[in-house]
Amino acid sequence: MEKPEEPALAKEAVLQESTKLPTDTPIVRGYDWNDGYDYSKLFSTYLHSGFQATNLGKAIEEIRKMIDARRVPLPEDKLDEYEEDEFIKRRSSCTIFLGYTSNMVSAGVRETIRFLVQHRLVDAIVTTAGGVEEDLIKCLAPTFVGSFELVGRELRERGINRIGNLLVPNENYCKFENWVIPLLDEMLEEQKSEKRTLWTPSKVIARLGERINDESSIYYWAAKNRIPVFSPALTDGSLGDMMYFHSFRNPGLVVDIVSDLRRLNTMAVKAVQSGMIIVGGGVIKHHICNANLMRNGADYSVFINTASEYDGSDSGARPDEAVSWGKIKKDASPVKVYAEASLVFPILVGETFVKEHFRVKAEQERNSK
Amino acid sequence: MEKPEEPALAKEAVLQESTKLPTDTPIVRGYDWNDGYDYSKLFSTYLHSGFQATNLGKAIEEIRKMIDARRVPLPEDKLDEYEEDEFIKRRSSCTIFLGYTSNMVSAGVRETIRFLVQHRLVDAIVTTAGGVEEDLIKCLAPTFVGSFELVGRELRERGINRIGNLLVPNENYCKFENWVIPLLDEMLEEQKSEKRTLWTPSKVIARLGERINDESSIYYWAAKNRIPVFSPALTDGSLGDMMYFHSFRNPGLVVDIVSDLRRLNTMAVKAVQSGMIIVGGGVIKHHICNANLMRNGADYSVFINTASEYDGSDSGARPDEAVSWGKIKKDASPVKVYAEASLVFPILVGETFVKEHFRVKAEQERNSK
Amino acid sequence: MEKPEEPALAKEAVLQESTKLPTDTPIVRGYDWNDGYDYSKLFSTYLHSGFQATNLGKAIEEIRKMIDARRVPLPEDKLDEYEEDEFIKRRSSCTIFLGYTSNMVSAGVRETIRFLVQHRLVDAIVTTAGGVEEDLIKCLAPTFVGSFELVGRELRERGINRIGNLLVPNENYCKFENWVIPLLDEMLEEQKSEKRTLWTPSKVIARLGERINDESSIYYWAAKNRIPVFSPALTDGSLGDMMYFHSFRNPGLVVDIVSDLRRLNTMAVKAVQSGMIIVGGGVIKHHICNANLMRNGADYSVFINTASEYDGSDSGARPDEAVSWGKIKKDASPVKVYAEASLVFPILVGETFVKEHFRVKAEQERNSK
Amino acid sequence: MEKPEEPALAKEAVLQESTKLPTDTPIVRGYDWNDGYDYSKLFSTYLHSGFQATNLGKAIEEIRKMIDARRVPLPEDKLDEYEEDEFIKRRSSCTIFLGYTSNMVSAGVRETIRFLVQHRLVDAIVTTAGGVEEDLIKCLAPTFVGSFELVGRELRERGINRIGNLLVPNENYCKFENWVIPLLDEMLEEQKSEKRTLWTPSKVIARLGERINDESSIYYWAAKNRIPVFSPALTDGSLGDMMYFHSFRNPGLVVDIVSDLRRLNTMAVKAVQSGMIIVGGGVIKHHICNANLMRNGADYSVFINTASEYDGSDSGARPDEAVSWGKIKKDASPVKVYAEASLVFPILVGETFVKEHFRVKAEQERNSK
Repeated sequence: MEKPEEPALAKEAVLQESTKLPTDTPIVRGYDWNDGYDYSKLFSTYLHSGFQATNLGKAIEEIRKMIDARRVPLPEDKLDEYEEDEFIKRRSSCTIFLGYTSNMVSAGVRETIRFLVQHRLVDAIVTTAGGVEEDLIKCLAPTFVGSFELVGRELRERGINRIGNLLVPNENYCKFENWVIPLLDEMLEEQKSEKRTLWTPSKVIARLGERINDESSIYYWAAKNRIPVFSPALTDGSLGDMMYFHSFRNPGLVVDIVSDLRRLNTMAVKAVQSGMIIVGGGVIKHHICNANLMRNGADYSVFINTASEYDGSDSGARPDEAVSWGKIKKDASPVKVYAEASLVFPILVGETFVKEHFRVKAEQERNSK
Repeated sequence: MEKPEEPALAKEAVLQESTKLPTDTPIVRGYDWNDGYDYSKLFSTYLHSGFQATNLGKAIEEIRKMIDARRVPLPEDKLDEYEEDEFIKRRSSCTIFLGYTSNMVSAGVRETIRFLVQHRLVDAIVTTAGGVEEDLIKCLAPTFVGSFELVGRELRERGINRIGNLLVPNENYCKFENWVIPLLDEMLEEQKSEKRTLWTPSKVIARLGERINDESSIYYWAAKNRIPVFSPALTDGSLGDMMYFHSFRNPGLVVDIVSDLRRLNTMAVKAVQSGMIIVGGGVIKHHICNANLMRNGADYSVFINTASEYDGSDSGARPDEAVSWGKIKKDASPVKVYAEASLVFPILVGETFVKEHFRVKAEQERNSK
Repeated sequence: MEKPEEPALAKEAVLQESTKLPTDTPIVRGYDWNDGYDYSKLFSTYLHSGFQATNLGKAIEEIRKMIDARRVPLPEDKLDEYEEDEFIKRRSSCTIFLGYTSNMVSAGVRETIRFLVQHRLVDAIVTTAGGVEEDLIKCLAPTFVGSFELVGRELRERGINRIGNLLVPNENYCKFENWVIPLLDEMLEEQKSEKRTLWTPSKVIARLGERINDESSIYYWAAKNRIPVFSPALTDGSLGDMMYFHSFRNPGLVVDIVSDLRRLNTMAVKAVQSGMIIVGGGVIKHHICNANLMRNGADYSVFINTASEYDGSDSGARPDEAVSWGKIKKDASPVKVYAEASLVFPILVGETFVKEHFRVKAEQERNSK
Repeated sequence: MEKPEEPALAKEAVLQESTKLPTDTPIVRGYDWNDGYDYSKLFSTYLHSGFQATNLGKAIEEIRKMIDARRVPLPEDKLDEYEEDEFIKRRSSCTIFLGYTSNMVSAGVRETIRFLVQHRLVDAIVTTAGGVEEDLIKCLAPTFVGSFELVGRELRERGINRIGNLLVPNENYCKFENWVIPLLDEMLEEQKSEKRTLWTPSKVIARLGERINDESSIYYWAAKNRIPVFSPALTDGSLGDMMYFHSFRNPGLVVDIVSDLRRLNTMAVKAVQSGMIIVGGGVIKHHICNANLMRNGADYSVFINTASEYDGSDSGARPDEAVSWGKIKKDASPVKVYAEASLVFPILVGETFVKEHFRVKAEQERNSK
């Protein structure tokens, strides 16, 4: 048999010529640890490291844009002087909406969220029922580290509830009941009183935040700093259990979701610019995005979650899907980081809000000397 | 150099002796297509095919248990004769809670859900705002098949909204506005009238279902068949947009979530046995499970979703996490199928409710002769 | 305070006008089970059901195209008469490459794969070491259904190996050793003999297939039907363990991977058209795609796996990434189904190869009368 | 109607009593950024932060154990003086196997891997063909940052290959061809010479590493530091393309996988203790684990990948599955971090090998004064 020739087709296909990329196309290059044990330097290389490191790098840039926009002084005609609702009053040139699911609060991400709220670095919050109650309950009794593999039946027999690899003794919920039921009585009384308070999830949460009296709490600071917390399905959790029990002992409490929607949408409509930082999926993601549709799209957007788009869920959708709806501006550069947030959200906040916070603080200290 | 000896350790480790498995351990064996083009036979082999095929096989078994339990006549003392709320009245020996996210209704899974509701095969529904409005909107104008890759900016310019690989022209939402605003007026009027209706999401949905007058609609049948539909965050969607606009034109509509919680929990508490079929994650999954905590756990549970547990979300949690909370009974055999539901939910329903429906129908026809 | 006006911006953003979609845009519509318990009908609606149902529908179409192309008689100049290697000889107008990972063989998908090979419906196979040995071992002793939750330590103490929710007693591997070691001796002898066989993974697999003598085996049929099976990392599994032990007892066996690459690439280069059906990720996916680069891209492609693109892996990449490499033709319509294959691969084969097989068979029977 | 009573069952189920957790159960608490912008402190709190932060914390601990074990001087009887193969000679009391997929090398993780190899902090490597060639090619021309959304057809027309959000101009592969073909000639010559070299993937890689002459390269250092690099399917990539072309121009090169397996397994068998660090799935994961079966299990194990177990793949399996096979010791504490590695692998290395490297360096500097 003759020696077969090299297949020309194959050669051509493999070694097809390429056109040059634009000269400013960034080159992939990771951090060289020989340059020192320095995370700030490491994270500065993420933008050019590829995959989700690049996306985390972009998310850092996107949030820095929000912070820069927020520093621009409000123009005279945007001072929002007639707004009587202190919580939704426009306070800066970029209104930042922060959303997160319950598990973030159960986990140690809570402390990072609290830092943001404590220092008034965000303007509105959307979370789930668990995202509210787990914070308050942690003021009454701790959540513990367990394991994903613990057996449900055995845990139930011991009255221990599992959240991923975390454990919450049932006692914590009993303590929560003792704390919250009198507050529900009080709210119902106000509803029935001359004041005729129409309670909404955000008002309930503000009240709970006012009463928890614990600086470790997100909602303590939210109430103090007049940051509204929205949670349309507030009954879907332990707080709902308590409202359910309360409805037998002392019936009649009404929690309206329509007026809360108006508060949230109003914030979006009146924002000079808006930013969305959304950790997780489900109602918290959709709700913030939908509010931003009211202003024809957010200017800045960062999503962090573990979901992918193939199942057609809003949770997994790429930001580009939200662009089609007008929930993100057409010319925006939204970023999605595919990651479990306990790993990256603290870093994202560290490289942006925290860095800025300490920069400003140092500046103030210098100036005060 | 000497010839090295076979390493005894390696040999021993690899060829370690094994004890026998119990003789009734099922052997893995897939369907032999030489036995014919027959899906019913194929699916009957799934239980022993491994991985998610096994889980789908188990889910089929679990739902058959729900159907069997539901056929048991209600004992005299469980007839629930004094319940005045027709929607939550106990009607069978197994109360089935069906939950699904919005995207299922946007997709063709809607027709399978409607079959279940039309033939009164489930007892309560929990869905999201989109899960409600997308069904109603489909009665006004169609949703189209597109692609995951279409560019958001271009779609927005054309007024086309993307949901995964589906497309909804914005016009559909305009039609929805025209249809729904008069109904909101009507509801507000009833609220202000002597009737003093306290609207809740489930009551709003029932009203919309009564008015849609279209047999292709899930909620047409839900209203007709007195199947309650819960959706605590009902404002989080197009329906919310309409309520928001309506709040300017004709302010004052209140939608209370506390009384709906009581309806839902009451159904769970009074159920003789209960089954949960939950397609997707987020609030719909948590809400049904939480209601079943009120009865110390569901008897039968099937979850279908694409999420995994590692992020500590309720969406991704294995059913065993719900056991630790008392949301599923300790001795139950809950099943989670890891799959995109458009692929498997129709099959799951086909092998259970549909098969049974046609079996019963055939029996009735035989008997009527 | 004055009654605030409806925000014009919001109204406009929400109710932005839309342009018409082309009139041939398919409408989303699922199967109406009222039309009967009929899976063939159900699956015919998947194309218009959205999300992965649509993708499964497209995959069915894509494979039908492969089958149609394969039926086109080979033109005279393509008869490949001089090819001496029967395994890689061009036999039809569409060369179909089938790839799958080991777990598919451990599961009941094995029987579906065997059907394809038995009836010579595919032309080349790429699999992993486990994808080879698990099939052969099943001829010696069964694999069992277990559960994902069984505890590793306890299983190890009993000598039971877990593969997802499947169980393989260690005894099976002992039986495999007894069966395979003499064959390795034989191969080594042939290598050392005048024949000077240069063994390659595909030659080893063909030899094993010739000897297993069991019609339930994939590789029995592959050998019989002269379908080559490639597995470049053939040492990475139990077969490797045996070769390792064998290298002490009877050293010297060489398994070359370069000549196998040439066989595989040659098949791709000489194919009139080519189709890829790849179940799972890793080396099996990359290897088939890379071979198709040699012909400047496959004509037809179906991927089924559970991975997403965000981690930059080849496993998770969308087919469009392979287009950039020239592994899939630029004008092709490749399909990826995001699904666990035990759920959908049997259906995909059922709706295509099986249907066609029985159609042809029926035709032949009609003709033979 | 009477006022219904609070359902006792519900109350009891919700507020079931709990037993105390052991007093040493760690409490969930995240980092308080008020304590300063300090990542070292942040990461020290991850262990108690929940979800994957906890797993990253555990992975840091696990690798510290490997490093500690590696520092223990080799006992006299373990000096391995008679081993003639320098690459597989036992050098420390803990043999560390590092595995990674190709994309890690395409991304900026390459620099972190190179640091490990440069400073001889690992003992053996298993990677894919791409994991080898992408490193070498980067010495010839850069890889660029692009985007996941770029269109394949357009890229192909420009000769630009996409890897996730990275771009490799085809020219790079042409340069690689020019560089590698003469080396293949050389290898073939050695095979044919009196030396009769039997090439294996690891020997080929060592040769390429010797010739690349670039300190930015992983394999430059691997060759220099006598760290073997295994890659059983070495033909599955650009290197394979070159071998394929070479087989026409200059046929006859043999690359044997059996002798490499023996080298790898021998390292595992002779290790005093062993550690596995595996980034990604597929053959690299299975191959390292399978080698550790030869010693009845690794002592220390860290997996980082994005796969979940539900599809029965080895890639997605929890470490506990490997315990059932004897690939991880029964009493070990293996860790899997569910994350995209570009985000976390640099941190994992930073908190362990890098910290230790600079600690030792500082100590040496102190001592040398």
